Amino acid sequence: MNRDEIIALDKADPLGNKRLEFDLPNSVIYLDGNSLGALPKSVKTRLAEVVSQQWGSDLIKSWNSHNWIDLPIKVGEKIARIIGAAPGQVICCDSISVNLFKLLCSALTLNSGRTVVLSTKDNFPTDLYMVQGLSDLLGPDLCHLQLVDEQDIQQSLIESVAVLLLTQVNFRTGKLLDMAKLTQLAHDKGILVIWDLAHSAGALPVELDQCKADFAVGCGYKYLNGGPGSPAFLYVAKRHQSEVKQPLTGWMGHAAPFAFDSKYHASPTINQFQCGTPSVLAMSALDAALDVWKNVDMSQVKSKSAALANVFMQLMQMHECLDGLKLCSPVEAELRGSQLAFSHRDAFAICQALIEKGVIADFRAPNMLRFGFTPLYTSFKDVWLAVTTLVNILESELYKEPRFKVALKVT
Amino acid sequence: MNRDEIIALDKADPLGNKRLEFDLPNSVIYLDGNSLGALPKSVKTRLAEVVSQQWGSDLIKSWNSHNWIDLPIKVGEKIARIIGAAPGQVICCDSISVNLFKLLCSALTLNSGRTVVLSTKDNFPTDLYMVQGLSDLLGPDLCHLQLVDEQDIQQSLIESVAVLLLTQVNFRTGKLLDMAKLTQLAHDKGILVIWDLAHSAGALPVELDQCKADFAVGCGYKYLNGGPGSPAFLYVAKRHQSEVKQPLTGWMGHAAPFAFDSKYHASPTINQFQCGTPSVLAMSALDAALDVWKNVDMSQVKSKSAALANVFMQLMQMHECLDGLKLCSPVEAELRGSQLAFSHRDAFAICQALIEKGVIADFRAPNMLRFGFTPLYTSFKDVWLAVTTLVNILESELYKEPRFKVALKVT
Repeated sequence: MNRDEIIALDKADPLGNKRLEFDLPNSVIYLDGNSLGALPKSVKTRLAEVVSQQWGSDLIKSWNSHNWIDLPIKVGEKIARIIGAAPGQVICCDSISVNLFKLLCSALTLNSGRTVVLSTKDNFPTDLYMVQGLSDLLGPDLCHLQLVDEQDIQQSLIESVAVLLLTQVNFRTGKLLDMAKLTQLAHDKGILVIWDLAHSAGALPVELDQCKADFAVGCGYKYLNGGPGSPAFLYVAKRHQSEVKQPLTGWMGHAAPFAFDSKYHASPTINQFQCGTPSVLAMSALDAALDVWKNVDMSQVKSKSAALANVFMQLMQMHECLDGLKLCSPVEAELRGSQLAFSHRDAFAICQALIEKGVIADFRAPNMLRFGFTPLYTSFKDVWLAVTTLVNILESELYKEPRFKVALKVT
Repeated sequence: MNRDEIIALDKADPLGNKRLEFDLPNSVIYLDGNSLGALPKSVKTRLAEVVSQQWGSDLIKSWNSHNWIDLPIKVGEKIARIIGAAPGQVICCDSISVNLFKLLCSALTLNSGRTVVLSTKDNFPTDLYMVQGLSDLLGPDLCHLQLVDEQDIQQSLIESVAVLLLTQVNFRTGKLLDMAKLTQLAHDKGILVIWDLAHSAGALPVELDQCKADFAVGCGYKYLNGGPGSPAFLYVAKRHQSEVKQPLTGWMGHAAPFAFDSKYHASPTINQFQCGTPSVLAMSALDAALDVWKNVDMSQVKSKSAALANVFMQLMQMHECLDGLKLCSPVEAELRGSQLAFSHRDAFAICQALIEKGVIADFRAPNMLRFGFTPLYTSFKDVWLAVTTLVNILESELYKEPRFKVALKVT
């Protein structure tokens, strides 16, 4: 594989023009869109308008005149199309953590009598923390977290389990779980499933409705490019909406918030999962960012994601100096999200050296180096340059210089 | 009182120059800053920089290089100075509703054995809804909401009450509760108090530490001018921080979030009250907005607020046609927040007519017209023009025209 072949791949890329919709700095190769998505140009103009015109000039009237009040639903519907959900099932609100709390309570209520929340040991920590918090609040007799290895999920699906809580794509390894199969196996035992789509929404085709999913959460700041700490979303299958009950009953979830009734009556729609007043600035940014997805075919996203990662692995194999980087992700594209992870004793220092050289990857404790491929704006040339830089750093042993050992607060 | 006197009042106003720090449209008299604060100019430049430079160019590195990770604490400390809290007790996060849930659980845990949450019938609905949600989750044997009239609070402070939940300034009438006295009376009976500062933070001097407050919440989008749906804040007195436990244990509340430990260990600081990833865009807007408060003397805010409202009432008394508007707020400034409310059978239509004429007030069901005075940018001339407009509308009976009867979704 040579440079010409790389250029040819970019030329043939049906998503190649999407990159023009993003403001990417020239000086960096950005392979961390799985952690924070790049800035869509549409967000800049939209936010400036929301601040100056909507907030600054139209002030309080904008709740009606600019339809601020409908943003959670409007943004939710845009996300719904990306994750295979029919209308009326997705709403944008709060954070993943807060939304998990709502859904855990909802699922436990629906499955009352059962108390176990089953999850995997290497699930993203906040998912596990939220179950621990709920378990402490309700007591282990009502909610109890059970953790198993990924390969033991299936055999652990027994009838005391109320809820199966899984992240579709593992945040470290990028390993993709089989949503259709696991949902079916869980349902066979009367278990409800909550899917965390943090690393899959926008990264690959997700088919919530088709998989008969019960509940899902996801965030706006990774592959959906909504900006740092962008609002999250949640999905509740239509069939559950009239039966569920969530405890974070803020006024925005009320059937008639502006009646100022002192008694709570949940909205009969997905709106019942809202809580407090939503951030209009943050949600407008995400709303604008989602316009990038208009006319995007998710199967093309998947093909390009697979191709980028395959080229990355092929290029790596051409260099002996990279042998110390052990692939922790599945080799087969259909078993992966849109990232590759490698373990190395010096992963932290290598990551810092890459960043110094303008290749933004990230490190995940204890020893993992992650490269994220975001098909809307990562090019094959990016991949080529990233591997070239990696080779330089390993060959020259640059990463052994003391300045790369300094720990950062956040990586 | 004539026009010259009004001009003289503006000239003598020590806060008069603060208005220059806001972008206010020329065409409106804005008396709704108690619902959505006006746009500080500093927010526009800050948000443009955060979007283009921090997110767009510096991307993921900004969590460190622009200290995104410390924003909740940094913003919390700026708010702390406005509400009489020593450092280490206030954090900016989530919404008032979500924060109330955390604090209700915290207070009930500290006061275990007691189950009643006492509040007022006309408290802001979301405060009551959040107790109802928690009560439904835990069952009435563990959490039970009891509502009383404002004048019956004192006699209802008995030893079965765990938590007294009060909004310092009533959202409809603007009536101010005596924080020092009620906190003391509650403590005498072993009751913990949660103060909702939605209508008092930035509206008047608040002295949480001096009043020996236990807990408080408040929002960023009213008198703090952080923008629509701006993040909220919460206060936990230092003396409670090592004993409390809140159930929304997201990763940002962990003692070491980036260790990715699968077990939750709460931060020993006020950080334990964070939950998910905070919105950097929304929080940066609030951070910039709070700079307007540098060197502001809260006693001057109170004096001006009182003077604005008093001039408003004096001007109203000069016009017989306004007699149908009945004052629902206390006459004495020291018993009020920074708003005046009037009831009128046609309050909704009058409010709409005012808005058409460029005077932005708001309506609260069932029959109340509210005028908010925000001492940093409301002028005495605004008050003069607002009353003049009100007189015109009432004298001409403009508000009786059919177009003002149309209900809006949000008012």
